[in-house]
Amino acid sequence: MTARLRSLLTAPASRPDLMAKAPRSGPDAVFLDLEDGVPPGAKLSARPDAHTAAESLLADHPKLLVFARVNGLSTPWFDDDVAEALPLGLTGVVVPKLESSTDVDTVEAALDRAGLGGLPVMAGIESAAGVARVQEILRPPVAWCYFGAEDYVADLGGIRTPGNLEVLYARSRVALAARVAEVHAIDQIVADLRDETRYLHDAEEGRALGYQGKLCIHPAQVALAHQVFTPSAEEVERARRLLAAYDAAAARGEATLDFEGQMVDEPMARRARATLAAIGEPVITTPGSSPSAPRTRPR
Amino acid sequence: MTARLRSLLTAPASRPDLMAKAPRSGPDAVFLDLEDGVPPGAKLSARPDAHTAAESLLADHPKLLVFARVNGLSTPWFDDDVAEALPLGLTGVVVPKLESSTDVDTVEAALDRAGLGGLPVMAGIESAAGVARVQEILRPPVAWCYFGAEDYVADLGGIRTPGNLEVLYARSRVALAARVAEVHAIDQIVADLRDETRYLHDAEEGRALGYQGKLCIHPAQVALAHQVFTPSAEEVERARRLLAAYDAAAARGEATLDFEGQMVDEPMARRARATLAAIGEPVITTPGSSPSAPRTRPR
Amino acid sequence: MTARLRSLLTAPASRPDLMAKAPRSGPDAVFLDLEDGVPPGAKLSARPDAHTAAESLLADHPKLLVFARVNGLSTPWFDDDVAEALPLGLTGVVVPKLESSTDVDTVEAALDRAGLGGLPVMAGIESAAGVARVQEILRPPVAWCYFGAEDYVADLGGIRTPGNLEVLYARSRVALAARVAEVHAIDQIVADLRDETRYLHDAEEGRALGYQGKLCIHPAQVALAHQVFTPSAEEVERARRLLAAYDAAAARGEATLDFEGQMVDEPMARRARATLAAIGEPVITTPGSSPSAPRTRPR
Repeated sequence: MTARLRSLLTAPASRPDLMAKAPRSGPDAVFLDLEDGVPPGAKLSARPDAHTAAESLLADHPKLLVFARVNGLSTPWFDDDVAEALPLGLTGVVVPKLESSTDVDTVEAALDRAGLGGLPVMAGIESAAGVARVQEILRPPVAWCYFGAEDYVADLGGIRTPGNLEVLYARSRVALAARVAEVHAIDQIVADLRDETRYLHDAEEGRALGYQGKLCIHPAQVALAHQVFTPSAEEVERARRLLAAYDAAAARGEATLDFEGQMVDEPMARRARATLAAIGEPVITTPGSSPSAPRTRPR
Repeated sequence: MTARLRSLLTAPASRPDLMAKAPRSGPDAVFLDLEDGVPPGAKLSARPDAHTAAESLLADHPKLLVFARVNGLSTPWFDDDVAEALPLGLTGVVVPKLESSTDVDTVEAALDRAGLGGLPVMAGIESAAGVARVQEILRPPVAWCYFGAEDYVADLGGIRTPGNLEVLYARSRVALAARVAEVHAIDQIVADLRDETRYLHDAEEGRALGYQGKLCIHPAQVALAHQVFTPSAEEVERARRLLAAYDAAAARGEATLDFEGQMVDEPMARRARATLAAIGEPVITTPGSSPSAPRTRPR
Repeated sequence: MTARLRSLLTAPASRPDLMAKAPRSGPDAVFLDLEDGVPPGAKLSARPDAHTAAESLLADHPKLLVFARVNGLSTPWFDDDVAEALPLGLTGVVVPKLESSTDVDTVEAALDRAGLGGLPVMAGIESAAGVARVQEILRPPVAWCYFGAEDYVADLGGIRTPGNLEVLYARSRVALAARVAEVHAIDQIVADLRDETRYLHDAEEGRALGYQGKLCIHPAQVALAHQVFTPSAEEVERARRLLAAYDAAAARGEATLDFEGQMVDEPMARRARATLAAIGEPVITTPGSSPSAPRTRPR
């Protein structure tokens, strides 16, 4: 479903208390993190904890999107994370450091073996190889991705700076590939937990580049993400008017219309639906599977 | 022909008065716009108006490059725009929102059906898919392209800002692809008609990135585009000296020469010819068809 | 060998005095330049001079990396430069303006004919075509590359500015491709010899983008390059601790470990080795040939 995903709050899978509290800050989505958030010695015990916490969150917070992030394909934990930590009903599984289409095949096979065939995937794009091959990675069952700036720059051998110039190329390229693949793109973390101004500035940059939401590594960042990624009242009103006019035209058998002086067609209607989805209004389309309007080409 | 194209002024095809006045500000090129400039209700009547206006401009202003922009391939108007709005003698047809090599095939077929086979095309690169596939789009009969920042960012789901960081990746990539394909690249519009400083700054950026001219959506922008995209007197003098020395060397059967302490070969001569073309001096080469000097590799 | 290459000082091959003095500023590497540094009239006499100078430098400065840059493939000098200017024992040959994988084949064939098969190559990426095809160029025997901003922008038809925005796309793309190919990337020159602040700023940018060293066109730039590209004492200490823990884990048959609260695996060990190499500590791996750790994926 195209639910709004402006904020994606992480909670370590080895901390049942933090996982249980995650909804308090009102995020659109949480991910229970078996990877970076859990030290190697706690990897095994974190699996049942994540499973239990995810089930509770899904039961108690029906509007919350609940993800779990497993350890990467190259670790010894990946397959058993998939087999043991993911309850039925999960919104999706987050797989870090995907680097090729073959990696996506491996994820699909592991999900199938675990009886979770069809579970949508959020791809972590956070290495040089991942960015270099992002176009081939962003295909079903990948329905979301996030750009991991810290890991990307570490892998590149570069340096992270507040100016973000060193990630502008990769961050732009990932957002573009996501748009072409109709994948929901989530922007990089901001590591400094106390710097609200930087978070807001970083989020504005991400939104300008085409990201639709942002990672939150602390509950206090959730409200900041919502502040930036929520459409304005004016944008929402316009989207409602446009869709009303578009649906009326469709009922008359017309594919394009003159809306407030502008030619409107299916792509613009899709954007208007995304705007409404972003404020939580019910929508019917499904990302990745939404049928594009057939191109009308008179002979 | 490699004519200078520093400024490309738009005029709505539904406004015969504005089309007739377009040459007054002295642009290098105009395009009569059947797409964004014309509301859906006026699309049909704009075709004969554009046809008539283009014929008059070509007859009365022999040095002016005259283009017409048709509606996009996915609209119901594309084929009849091509069939009815384009007079013989037109400099080229502008096709917005091209997104693949297949789209270019479709344009060629439509031109053939309309008896306009061989008419060069200016490709609008202004969507996520268009930028992602720009390399395959920029091939004959495409001889020019423009980067449409507003449509690109809207399609991406991003936000346009005066800082232009959100388009730096795409704008750079389009300019590079154009250079490799030997296609003349035209830079994005500046929507704020009253902000001369922003236009000049934006044009300087575009020129630094490799663009050779800029869209003008108001006659007052034409002089600003010329101010930025005209080579300096010093650049012109150097180009003349270089070509004289190069032609003398060629007459002696030499492919490279020492020109003012620098090794000069065909690529540098080509750039010098482009400089002279940019100030309107006659040139003989044709973009896309100019033969590169064979690589001289002694066995 | 993965020797540190923070600074790469150029010396014109037509100037035996400057070549002999090149080690005085303490660069990690020098390249004796038969290309841009030598006017056409002196190309032939520069070959034996470069040959002799390289032999002396190799004999007298065993830790210095010694390269020679030949003229480009499209010049009449390329083959004889390779045949006559490169002594046995040279660290590598620098080939400017490589533009395709076919160009790399041509270089390999010329090296073979000259009895220099296996000599590693430093690729100059400094044209529109070179950047557009950088991924195919960076493969063995290419073990290093440099990004040539001045030539790239001239070829693009753009303008060089101190802000570097016009090269951010290409400079980022080259660094990323180099990382993926495990090629050592050297950053652009700074043409203004007297502006230390600009050099330092430019080097900081390059390091953030993933470059591992920088071109120096004057001996005074060598110390500046070292100032920026030398890891801090803290980075070095951490790398030593990490490798000790990693090697101990490997001796126990473990591929990953918990190091100071962070999961550590082969890629992080590789980075730690690179940090030590950057300060000149002995390392065993060879760039391009270093075997990646096999991915551990339990069935």
